Amino acid sequence: MNTRIETDSMGPIEVPADRYWGAQTQRSMHHFPIGVARFRWQRPVIRALGLLKKAAARANAELGELPEETAWLIEQAADEVIEGRLDAHFPLVVFQTGSGTQSNMNANEVIANRAIEIAGGVMGSKSPVHPNDHVNRGQSSNDTFPTAMHIAVVEELQQRLFPAVLALRDTLHAKAQAYDHVVKTGRTHLQDATPITLGQEIGSWVAQIDFGLDAVQASLTGLYDLAIGGTAVGTGLNAHPQFGERAAEHLAELTGHPFRSAPNKFFALSAHDALVQCSAALRTLAGGLMKMANDVRWLASGPRCGIGELRIPENEPGSSIMPGKVNPTQCEALTMVCVQVFGNDAAVAFAGTQGNFQLNVYKPVMVHNVLESIELLADACGAFDRYCAQGIEPNEAVIDEHLERNLMLVTALNRHIGYDRAAQIAKKAHKEGLTLREAALASGYVSAEDYDRWIDPLAMTRPG
Amino acid sequence: MNTRIETDSMGPIEVPADRYWGAQTQRSMHHFPIGVARFRWQRPVIRALGLLKKAAARANAELGELPEETAWLIEQAADEVIEGRLDAHFPLVVFQTGSGTQSNMNANEVIANRAIEIAGGVMGSKSPVHPNDHVNRGQSSNDTFPTAMHIAVVEELQQRLFPAVLALRDTLHAKAQAYDHVVKTGRTHLQDATPITLGQEIGSWVAQIDFGLDAVQASLTGLYDLAIGGTAVGTGLNAHPQFGERAAEHLAELTGHPFRSAPNKFFALSAHDALVQCSAALRTLAGGLMKMANDVRWLASGPRCGIGELRIPENEPGSSIMPGKVNPTQCEALTMVCVQVFGNDAAVAFAGTQGNFQLNVYKPVMVHNVLESIELLADACGAFDRYCAQGIEPNEAVIDEHLERNLMLVTALNRHIGYDRAAQIAKKAHKEGLTLREAALASGYVSAEDYDRWIDPLAMTRPG
Amino acid sequence: MNTRIETDSMGPIEVPADRYWGAQTQRSMHHFPIGVARFRWQRPVIRALGLLKKAAARANAELGELPEETAWLIEQAADEVIEGRLDAHFPLVVFQTGSGTQSNMNANEVIANRAIEIAGGVMGSKSPVHPNDHVNRGQSSNDTFPTAMHIAVVEELQQRLFPAVLALRDTLHAKAQAYDHVVKTGRTHLQDATPITLGQEIGSWVAQIDFGLDAVQASLTGLYDLAIGGTAVGTGLNAHPQFGERAAEHLAELTGHPFRSAPNKFFALSAHDALVQCSAALRTLAGGLMKMANDVRWLASGPRCGIGELRIPENEPGSSIMPGKVNPTQCEALTMVCVQVFGNDAAVAFAGTQGNFQLNVYKPVMVHNVLESIELLADACGAFDRYCAQGIEPNEAVIDEHLERNLMLVTALNRHIGYDRAAQIAKKAHKEGLTLREAALASGYVSAEDYDRWIDPLAMTRPG
Amino acid sequence: MNTRIETDSMGPIEVPADRYWGAQTQRSMHHFPIGVARFRWQRPVIRALGLLKKAAARANAELGELPEETAWLIEQAADEVIEGRLDAHFPLVVFQTGSGTQSNMNANEVIANRAIEIAGGVMGSKSPVHPNDHVNRGQSSNDTFPTAMHIAVVEELQQRLFPAVLALRDTLHAKAQAYDHVVKTGRTHLQDATPITLGQEIGSWVAQIDFGLDAVQASLTGLYDLAIGGTAVGTGLNAHPQFGERAAEHLAELTGHPFRSAPNKFFALSAHDALVQCSAALRTLAGGLMKMANDVRWLASGPRCGIGELRIPENEPGSSIMPGKVNPTQCEALTMVCVQVFGNDAAVAFAGTQGNFQLNVYKPVMVHNVLESIELLADACGAFDRYCAQGIEPNEAVIDEHLERNLMLVTALNRHIGYDRAAQIAKKAHKEGLTLREAALASGYVSAEDYDRWIDPLAMTRPG
Repeated sequence: MNTRIETDSMGPIEVPADRYWGAQTQRSMHHFPIGVARFRWQRPVIRALGLLKKAAARANAELGELPEETAWLIEQAADEVIEGRLDAHFPLVVFQTGSGTQSNMNANEVIANRAIEIAGGVMGSKSPVHPNDHVNRGQSSNDTFPTAMHIAVVEELQQRLFPAVLALRDTLHAKAQAYDHVVKTGRTHLQDATPITLGQEIGSWVAQIDFGLDAVQASLTGLYDLAIGGTAVGTGLNAHPQFGERAAEHLAELTGHPFRSAPNKFFALSAHDALVQCSAALRTLAGGLMKMANDVRWLASGPRCGIGELRIPENEPGSSIMPGKVNPTQCEALTMVCVQVFGNDAAVAFAGTQGNFQLNVYKPVMVHNVLESIELLADACGAFDRYCAQGIEPNEAVIDEHLERNLMLVTALNRHIGYDRAAQIAKKAHKEGLTLREAALASGYVSAEDYDRWIDPLAMTRPG
Repeated sequence: MNTRIETDSMGPIEVPADRYWGAQTQRSMHHFPIGVARFRWQRPVIRALGLLKKAAARANAELGELPEETAWLIEQAADEVIEGRLDAHFPLVVFQTGSGTQSNMNANEVIANRAIEIAGGVMGSKSPVHPNDHVNRGQSSNDTFPTAMHIAVVEELQQRLFPAVLALRDTLHAKAQAYDHVVKTGRTHLQDATPITLGQEIGSWVAQIDFGLDAVQASLTGLYDLAIGGTAVGTGLNAHPQFGERAAEHLAELTGHPFRSAPNKFFALSAHDALVQCSAALRTLAGGLMKMANDVRWLASGPRCGIGELRIPENEPGSSIMPGKVNPTQCEALTMVCVQVFGNDAAVAFAGTQGNFQLNVYKPVMVHNVLESIELLADACGAFDRYCAQGIEPNEAVIDEHLERNLMLVTALNRHIGYDRAAQIAKKAHKEGLTLREAALASGYVSAEDYDRWIDPLAMTRPG
Repeated sequence: MNTRIETDSMGPIEVPADRYWGAQTQRSMHHFPIGVARFRWQRPVIRALGLLKKAAARANAELGELPEETAWLIEQAADEVIEGRLDAHFPLVVFQTGSGTQSNMNANEVIANRAIEIAGGVMGSKSPVHPNDHVNRGQSSNDTFPTAMHIAVVEELQQRLFPAVLALRDTLHAKAQAYDHVVKTGRTHLQDATPITLGQEIGSWVAQIDFGLDAVQASLTGLYDLAIGGTAVGTGLNAHPQFGERAAEHLAELTGHPFRSAPNKFFALSAHDALVQCSAALRTLAGGLMKMANDVRWLASGPRCGIGELRIPENEPGSSIMPGKVNPTQCEALTMVCVQVFGNDAAVAFAGTQGNFQLNVYKPVMVHNVLESIELLADACGAFDRYCAQGIEPNEAVIDEHLERNLMLVTALNRHIGYDRAAQIAKKAHKEGLTLREAALASGYVSAEDYDRWIDPLAMTRPG
Repeated sequence: MNTRIETDSMGPIEVPADRYWGAQTQRSMHHFPIGVARFRWQRPVIRALGLLKKAAARANAELGELPEETAWLIEQAADEVIEGRLDAHFPLVVFQTGSGTQSNMNANEVIANRAIEIAGGVMGSKSPVHPNDHVNRGQSSNDTFPTAMHIAVVEELQQRLFPAVLALRDTLHAKAQAYDHVVKTGRTHLQDATPITLGQEIGSWVAQIDFGLDAVQASLTGLYDLAIGGTAVGTGLNAHPQFGERAAEHLAELTGHPFRSAPNKFFALSAHDALVQCSAALRTLAGGLMKMANDVRWLASGPRCGIGELRIPENEPGSSIMPGKVNPTQCEALTMVCVQVFGNDAAVAFAGTQGNFQLNVYKPVMVHNVLESIELLADACGAFDRYCAQGIEPNEAVIDEHLERNLMLVTALNRHIGYDRAAQIAKKAHKEGLTLREAALASGYVSAEDYDRWIDPLAMTRPG
């Protein structure tokens, strides 16, 4: 392998000649061979670092902290990072230093060397662009990395999660409207209960997804606050006093999201409660999706020995041994994702408690888990929408048969004959295997005419 | 024991003669002897059931669903429940049916019998006040119990949690202001870092508590939505169409909190995501308190072999074997509470996923854990405020000594001599055991005059 | 209130005249008013402290560290603590100092004062029995409290949990044998699958409970190791070198459990991984119980619109609005307990990570949660056994009907005609609403004679 | 892209011509585009599937269920899977059907097509080797996938986790021995306590790691039980009665681990409590590692304003803004891994509760998380060992200075002058800023001669 020499305050070190990274990135690769196959930073974090470095260079130039020429070079290189053209130069993994310093330096080094290259200089020379003095100007890992965390999460929420979940939500909403006339057995405690419509049942899932989405969206407020400008400990030492605000403005402009400089930089470095709240909201959303997916698979259970009130698409053979079996596989994938989101959230919340003094050093593992949850929820909602939700249909024959047999229609009699007498009728029907109508007439409390007037399943779903 | 006979749809059963409860309460006591010593419902839930039954009676009367006389009797009895005069008649525990049906019936039975007594009737006769047909009029456990859950949690948040946490927050805020002039060593990665003021350090705790409080307050929105009016499955069967709204209005008036009828009753019965979000926000708050308490005890560690920059009150002897030892016991109690809140939240979130169809049957365990978290956080913040926070004082001698020795003051040189040269100076001081000033002058990069002008710890905490 | 003066190293303080506790207990009550209604230590911990103090006195006397007379006095008083006669003198709560020092001192003070009283001395005089120098002889809170934790947990496991879970397990085992001839539809992915017997289905629950019980029992090994003898930091300073072993022997004799002196006392003070493992095993057991309880309620779902293959006891009216409804309430209580055990375990495991140097100061919250989990599991298994499991019965009509309709009987044809042809038959039956037999014969792959020979549901449950 | 046609019971579908997989794999890729970049199955699971298919072919051949020729072909292809030569033909992700059916079929299809190729047949023809009738002979996904789960986890534990953790453990053990003479300040509640040796302190970490390792090793017992032989629902339908045992024997032989046929196959399909227990034990181990890593970084905190009693290797520049800063980065990476293991465990335990009837359909997410935890713990322990633990050294100057100042040496006086007088001395020293010796002599309770005889720090660490 061809190499060149890069140096940092620890001294010189060989790096691959065809990579832009420098000494600190190389040291991190050496010291943190942890989960290398699966835990390298993905696009969202790399892009966020690029956005940040571009915004910082611009802000510094405007504030007289960097020559325009230097800033221009940095911005050119940062654009390549943003666009994903330099992803192969970001080899570091999540499990590194807990401040993300090494990934911040990875960005500084790659951008400096690429900028040097653009300027026709010698890679590793730190001239005319120095990774610390120029690219990291007015910054510290302690404020840049949490800034990148917020940028990455906000972008992924907005561009990946919300569209996918909303598409599923809209599919379900349309189903709720389409099946609002289908009266069916309600179920509480898994036991037969008074009737509802299939539209109401599906509409409940929609309301729950809406609640979860609202919760995630509410977490954006905290995520829009950026640590940038706090530098090493929150005081902003070595940064121009207006740097944080100016950089945040550029980030808002570059991304289209209303980022702002965090009002308390000490808090922004020492804790990541905005991420904790975001993770918690993702967990709430996952909980709602899990309930929905469970309802779908139970309602579709059977085909002949289960509830069987819904039909869902048959996408794949369900069994390697049982011929012709079809399973609710999209429900299974989605609920597994929900369980994963719960686990990820546990990690995030735990990590969030472990800050000390001016820094929380669990930054990488926190953002990693939040991003994983977003990605998995988005992907799983997309698949569930396309390959399950859109194909949900009522099995009206089964629905009607169940409704016919449901003893809890008796509840409509409460207002006419009282709870105690109604209970006698239901118990009689249950014990003797009668229909509710048979038992009601046999009780002597209700005439056939009254029964037929009072027991109207559709009306029972729309009281008043 | 004197007994009387009470009946329900299962038949007759003996209950203690001096208790107002009826058959269903008695059956629940018999079938659920689980954690009896510690898991009986406490004041907040009993009071909430009383409030609800009063509001329901009033609403029913206004809507012509109950005679005024019957409603009046119910309200009298409900007032006694609200005031806590009938707590001894609520013997049931958390681990019962998952809809809380038995506690709803406990309230119905106690109020009916007490109302019958007021009316001069015979207890157990269900006349002139019937527990189901009158006290539970237009209601189901499936909508009343979650309504009571929200009422109990909102009241406890408002009356118990917020005042206690705010008092602590205000104490810390005052400390932050009082010590804003105390310049001290910052710490990141547990390692010496650039200076901050003690006011900034404490102010970061305040900002974090504010964030947590905001999150908990944001959860109120969901909690103000009440299930009442949904009855058995969300359709509102057997309730007057305006009952839910009317009852919610009365509850708002009785409590002073802006309760309203939930827009989607199906969701309000089948999931309790508002509680899940509340629990998550309590967890975030707990995480912030844990970080603060950890900082306090580390900063107060010693007295002679630790960091020792803070003095905290010496409340009790710290050791049964080490004479004269004093420990940060309030920090310990508070962080144990935080850990408990994390555990409680895990239970709540898990339970929240397990709803099926029209009902989530983990209602009691969910509200129990949220209320326990509220109580513990409130109590622990109160104790921490009074017995620790109010007595926090800087140990200025130690603070000054640490600041004097802190090599990271070197960071102020970056802007003047660049990062690389500054690093050489710091490393030289560290390796050779020099002061930073000695190493700086020896380096030749900095004159004594420059050093004294550039290295100004107070200025380093207030750049710009 | 009558009071007397007690003193400790902080000075004098008034305590109620009718209580045996001393100054440090009083201070703890004052400083830790946290969850007072529900978080006072219960019998198991108080008893364990009594056992420990008795064993310590005996060991000290044997080793010449205490006069026989003093030891005798301590043992008399300790016996009263063991028997529960002094529970009212243990007012402290879980959320106190994290070493449990105050509860250790509570025991020391109560025993000293009661011993003084027996000796005819003056309470509070510390003579002839001193709480620290005599009752706490050779001990520190740091080794006594974790010792008491292990004693309490072991006793509760052995006396409370194991009998209750085993009784349930034996009930289910008997049911498995009783119903081993009942052939029914198997279900995978909630979808109809090849047949099993009800005995096999219930036997799977038994095997899972056995696995969970084994895991809990395996955790006993770690719990038998006692910290006693380590004193303040693990070195055993101020204790006779044989004290730890001797005290452990006495504890083994007093309790009948094979306690021993922990091989590494430093580990025994600074971490409580034996409790963490015990909690984890309780979680595994809870997970198994949850699966069982869920199976029971789903198999009993209906009565007419669910699976309906099992009948379970009808213990209480199920609904305040739906007359005649009966619900699987024991399943609900048990699964709520399981969820609580998961939450408790999260708290225990979190707390277990937070030790520093020579001490973990989350001791009280750890043992509290483990004991709560044990109590709830024991109580809930007891109730579930008596009020649900013992009454489980197959609904053979439904079981037979389902089995008759189950298309997955087709799997038995694989060996004869291959998976692909078998799949064609099953799909044909499903699409055209045929019985499997009809579809098989129509396919031309199977003769009527072969079909009847090959498709034998009972044989399918007992291959070979 | 060149394609060929493959068929399954759903019909024909195009697959890439250069891939061995068949129709069901292709459908899964289409329907589950979830986390594709990071959630494809890795080596351990693919290898385990290969091992299983080889063992199954052998067992079937021996039992007369497959012709030798067919078995031989399958074994050739399976060997290539085992060796990793066909990894590119396993494109499926974790979030698929919850039984792992599609990955089982992926193995069946790849092995069948490769075997066909070896035999000179036409890929996709299912002749002479059929994916279901031959490769999957006597098997179902429901027993093969959990069998592969256990194989993969056992191999990873044995080959990856144990060596890495043991190496770290041995390094620490050697350090404990090397520094057994270094007497230093003990710390409890973060406060100065009686002395210990550095060897004792490090030895406590060793004991804790040993406990965690023992717990993980104990979980092997459950993992050695294999589901193979249970087929679809646990009855073993379509498998030769001796197939499960025979296949397990071959797996034991192929791997060198004592696998056996699970005694209860119904339990082995419907629950994965052996994995849950394994995950819990990994969590316990992680908790111990977290405590150790936290101790290391706190003891190494400073360099000048912290505890500073340990020196650890300086591997990388610690800050992008603070020149010369060095941080405990290995501790940070390791504790982040521990937090991740806690999150993963939460997912595993949650998933473990969610089985229904004859199957738990969270298999893939369970094994994924356990394998991730193993990999991360192994990698992080390896890095921590090499780049931190091996370089730990005492800073004896600081250690001695702290010990000199430590007031808790007073504890040694208890036995001579009693706890109360000893407390007076310590408090006097603390209040007046005296050394302990000064305060002791000033108290009049102790002569200079006695003091020097009684206060012997080294002796205090080795009583008796």
